[in-house]
Amino acid sequence: MISGKNYIGNQLSANGNKTYKTFNPQLHIENSPIYTESTKEEIDKAVSLASKAFKTFRNISGKKKAEFLNAIADEILALDSELIETYCSETGLPEGRAIGERGRTVGQLRAFAELVQEGSWVEASIDTAQPERQPMSKSDIRKMLVPLGPVVVFGASNFPLAYSTAGGDTAAALAAGCPVLVKSHPMHAGTGELVASAIIKAAEKTGMPNGVFSNLNSSGIEVGTQLVSHPDVKAVGFTGSIRGGRALYDLAAKREEPIPVFAEMGSINPVVILPEALKNKGVALANTYAGSITLGTGQFCTNPGLLLGIKSDSLTNFIQNLSDEIIKIEPSCMLHPNIIGAYESNKQKALSQPELTVVANYDSEVKPNYARQTVTTVEGSTFLNNTTLHQEVFGPYSMVVQCEHAQQLEQVISKLEGQLTGTLIAENDEAAQYSQIIEALQNRVGRIIYNGVPTGVEVCPSMVHGGPYPASTDSRFTAVGIHSIKRWVRPFSYQDWPNNLLPDALKNENPLHISRLVNNKQTTDNI
Amino acid sequence: MISGKNYIGNQLSANGNKTYKTFNPQLHIENSPIYTESTKEEIDKAVSLASKAFKTFRNISGKKKAEFLNAIADEILALDSELIETYCSETGLPEGRAIGERGRTVGQLRAFAELVQEGSWVEASIDTAQPERQPMSKSDIRKMLVPLGPVVVFGASNFPLAYSTAGGDTAAALAAGCPVLVKSHPMHAGTGELVASAIIKAAEKTGMPNGVFSNLNSSGIEVGTQLVSHPDVKAVGFTGSIRGGRALYDLAAKREEPIPVFAEMGSINPVVILPEALKNKGVALANTYAGSITLGTGQFCTNPGLLLGIKSDSLTNFIQNLSDEIIKIEPSCMLHPNIIGAYESNKQKALSQPELTVVANYDSEVKPNYARQTVTTVEGSTFLNNTTLHQEVFGPYSMVVQCEHAQQLEQVISKLEGQLTGTLIAENDEAAQYSQIIEALQNRVGRIIYNGVPTGVEVCPSMVHGGPYPASTDSRFTAVGIHSIKRWVRPFSYQDWPNNLLPDALKNENPLHISRLVNNKQTTDNI
Repeated sequence: MISGKNYIGNQLSANGNKTYKTFNPQLHIENSPIYTESTKEEIDKAVSLASKAFKTFRNISGKKKAEFLNAIADEILALDSELIETYCSETGLPEGRAIGERGRTVGQLRAFAELVQEGSWVEASIDTAQPERQPMSKSDIRKMLVPLGPVVVFGASNFPLAYSTAGGDTAAALAAGCPVLVKSHPMHAGTGELVASAIIKAAEKTGMPNGVFSNLNSSGIEVGTQLVSHPDVKAVGFTGSIRGGRALYDLAAKREEPIPVFAEMGSINPVVILPEALKNKGVALANTYAGSITLGTGQFCTNPGLLLGIKSDSLTNFIQNLSDEIIKIEPSCMLHPNIIGAYESNKQKALSQPELTVVANYDSEVKPNYARQTVTTVEGSTFLNNTTLHQEVFGPYSMVVQCEHAQQLEQVISKLEGQLTGTLIAENDEAAQYSQIIEALQNRVGRIIYNGVPTGVEVCPSMVHGGPYPASTDSRFTAVGIHSIKRWVRPFSYQDWPNNLLPDALKNENPLHISRLVNNKQTTDNI
Repeated sequence: MISGKNYIGNQLSANGNKTYKTFNPQLHIENSPIYTESTKEEIDKAVSLASKAFKTFRNISGKKKAEFLNAIADEILALDSELIETYCSETGLPEGRAIGERGRTVGQLRAFAELVQEGSWVEASIDTAQPERQPMSKSDIRKMLVPLGPVVVFGASNFPLAYSTAGGDTAAALAAGCPVLVKSHPMHAGTGELVASAIIKAAEKTGMPNGVFSNLNSSGIEVGTQLVSHPDVKAVGFTGSIRGGRALYDLAAKREEPIPVFAEMGSINPVVILPEALKNKGVALANTYAGSITLGTGQFCTNPGLLLGIKSDSLTNFIQNLSDEIIKIEPSCMLHPNIIGAYESNKQKALSQPELTVVANYDSEVKPNYARQTVTTVEGSTFLNNTTLHQEVFGPYSMVVQCEHAQQLEQVISKLEGQLTGTLIAENDEAAQYSQIIEALQNRVGRIIYNGVPTGVEVCPSMVHGGPYPASTDSRFTAVGIHSIKRWVRPFSYQDWPNNLLPDALKNENPLHISRLVNNKQTTDNI
């Protein structure tokens, strides 16, 4: 049952007078629940509870944290059809996608549960004392990762489950031992509240301190601004637009105590198609990419918005085939009128640039909030000289850049802003000849894909979802996979600390049986 | 032979007309060499060479990088007495310190050489494909750490070798595969040029690309500002004052593409003395701390500037003993007239605060640039209400805060800014009773020391030299030890990449024989 209220710690609360509703883009009507934006006092209380909760939560065992994370997963599943229906009503996405994304969300929670239960993730490192060392004795020094403190999470419009309330950022922060304050996304406030209720239930069932989680309704920028500016908030996770992410980054950088902001933002995900591959498999490729560009109405961070090739008959044919194929695809619904509004205006901005040719444009009548897919093409030199064409058009849009030669292709790649992904389409014996192009591509992206599509982000330890700015605000971290926990922790050293007062991870006996670096050798042995 | 010129890549260059000299604080005279500040064009050229060098340097094998790092160490040692004499003439520090710091610098370089030669530091992670997985096949995904790009290093006034030209930041960045541009510290420009010449010699001997290292003379803020603002610079390392570090952090955050700045800045390194320990070993402690406060004329980031205790006769006695002992110590020379100038003015600012008592003040005549040690004391409530007293007085100064009770002591600790270190002086059976105080201390620092002194930073894998702001700009990293390499690298993923095109660290055969995470299991096996 959706209340429309905030969770200030474990308590439902709605003291404010600013209210809003979510929108069903398929039916093109507002959904009925009314959400109350959190007040300044509610936010202060939530942060204060989080700070207090941190004092105990940061010392809770990995086993207890795993119970909590698994309980969240269980409670999300227990929401059953209410969650799926709410999700669909707030996004226009089909039930299959909702169920798939729920599976991924639950999977992420369980992966972090496994990580902290096992325990070696703290990167325990021990250098034992050498009292006899000359000219100076050496102290016993031991190090491990510890949580930063309360983390604010801004969910994504396009992933109401996997990148939002109990998504990757939240799961990683809780696993690290950081209380989480979610700035609820106004487009899916109901989905957010339901997931928040699951987290609160799980926290209560597993005995977590009140304040370990809060969910704050918000329809504008005020709630987020207050949260990021609060001195007791120690880090921020964000998934969304470059403008939004950069604004939060700037806000955090201006604080008296600057805090880390990990924002995963825009990306046009260049796909480089080498000549031989284009010749040999251009038709299949056109088919594949027509699907990838329109998948989920193009509403993925990894949507291929830029296809790069060298001029040839094969490239001309490929553009024709891609146009023919993409036009056959039935348009689908975008997440919200604001999202399709931005799609249309960003697309128009691109289309109004000189020397750009539209090669495919779905132009039949569509339902409200349904997006027409579009493919355009430009010359390499045009692209190089007009950075407006480098900007993301979030939605089912892609542009083919026709370069004169390999050198221009390399130049185009080198001029790109940072990207989440880069894709290389090549024949196996061809790739080695284009090593400079591959090098240039690697230097601009966080993940490089061979003969595939960038859409689809596998959740596994080796995944990097991040990249050079503006793909993310800090390329040294990933937003997906167990190593995303590193965003929310810092190394901490104990010098000559008594064994009985050390945390279990660093005790001589290695009671957690974790893998540790002992005198520069990785081992599970005790000392 | 000191030329006074910049190293723009491998070339000596001095096109500018702004010159300066270094100063011998012991003799209170200028040193004779004349240094020419680098020009805008020289800086641009150095960055351009670094960017070009990065294209090859980032792919150079760990073995080759190790040769380079070891060669730097060898060339530094080969500078022999010229380096030691220049060091002493530019710092006023004794020869023994110069030799000790050189040993540490060489040790750091060799430790990074060992790290990259072994190779497992890249955190290789491999998730193999599952083509049969339902509902979707799983791609092969492999991840490793790759270098960020050209790094600018700002050396520290107080460590001309270990935290400067070829110090920890430079060694870590070169080990990572990042070219380095050093903004030479004006106070030890000669030491800097000599070490730079060693790096250039080593680069040439081991076949490194021109531009892998540059040394840029600078006497004001212009050179540093230009470097940090340059779009081709990808990260910054800094050791110095809060004001300087914060200015660079702000500059980098305002760039179109923000870049990470790791600045290790101020710290007053609180020492918490518990009652039983004070009673039982107050006399020895006073002696130890008189030494620690004045060690190296108090010019360490880890100098104990704040001693915290609970009011008692033992605390009164301790203050008396500390005062008696510290006054016996012969004053020593500070690094530069500007440094002693800052010491005197910061000390005066502290001494002018109401309700502060001076308990020890060396007041005999001293030579120019010699610093008089001072100890003061305040009540806990005074300290809590006056944040001016929380500011660092860089030099042989310390303040004893007399708290009413344990609760006030905890409050004082909680109100402190972030610190590099915190020290606990306790009896073994006493510490467990003060767990809240220990918790509070842990939450404010990067390293916690038991019954010791904070001065002395062991270079080992378990060391954390960093901490919550303003101890550093990003507590998620350390400036000392092999893991400081993580500041200059980012994770990078390959998806379905052909084995022959993968870097060696990720190839099936594991040709580097490194430890890798393969399908979530750490192993050196091949695939």
